[in-house]
Amino acid sequence: MKPINLSEKLSAFSEHWSPKIVSAYNNNDVLVVKVQGEFNWHSHAETDDFFLVLKGQITIEMHEGNVTLNEGEMYIVPAGVEHRPIAKEEAHLLVIEPKNTPNTGDPSTAATKVEI
Amino acid sequence: MKPINLSEKLSAFSEHWSPKIVSAYNNNDVLVVKVQGEFNWHSHAETDDFFLVLKGQITIEMHEGNVTLNEGEMYIVPAGVEHRPIAKEEAHLLVIEPKNTPNTGDPSTAATKVEI
Repeated sequence: MKPINLSEKLSAFSEHWSPKIVSAYNNNDVLVVKVQGEFNWHSHAETDDFFLVLKGQITIEMHEGNVTLNEGEMYIVPAGVEHRPIAKEEAHLLVIEPKNTPNTGDPSTAATKVEI
Repeated sequence: MKPINLSEKLSAFSEHWSPKIVSAYNNNDVLVVKVQGEFNWHSHAETDDFFLVLKGQITIEMHEGNVTLNEGEMYIVPAGVEHRPIAKEEAHLLVIEPKNTPNTGDPSTAATKVEI
């Protein structure tokens, strides 16, 4: 029964594109992640993809157009929509996804999500 | 295909305890809400209750103990746990709940959630 301090959680690791589980909401993982550079193009057929920028800036490239998010801005990529997050400089995100969703869209290349 | 700016959304209304829908994540509403004072004791049998403080401070009272959350802190009240959010001064929250969840736990007293 403790508050979850997102900055504190983020200060506990440094690697990029390696989401860490901070809590659970129903059947979803709530994660923080540090990102920098270009991720892979991918989509999740079964789930929307929730992004909230806690620090910095990201652009979510989609074939239909791009969305640039600054701190305090969020976007939800609809299920099935192919996208690629990119960040010129390090950015910190809150992400929500159903448990066992591969972050790359492909279990064989997905990061292992650990709880912190 | 536009970023959702949470501060902008919050600046569009002033009433307390009246959650506004800013987006949808799978079968959930993503909402912002301004709170001040004491809410009612309630629980949601079917769903966890997601709280992230965007501004200010809230305390979530529970029979097992209280959790105080400051800006950048979150807490998820497990399904079925009776709780009462209180805020001495106005606080701004991001809340996620399954569509059609009554914010008071009781459809007869729940706020109508409108999209902004």
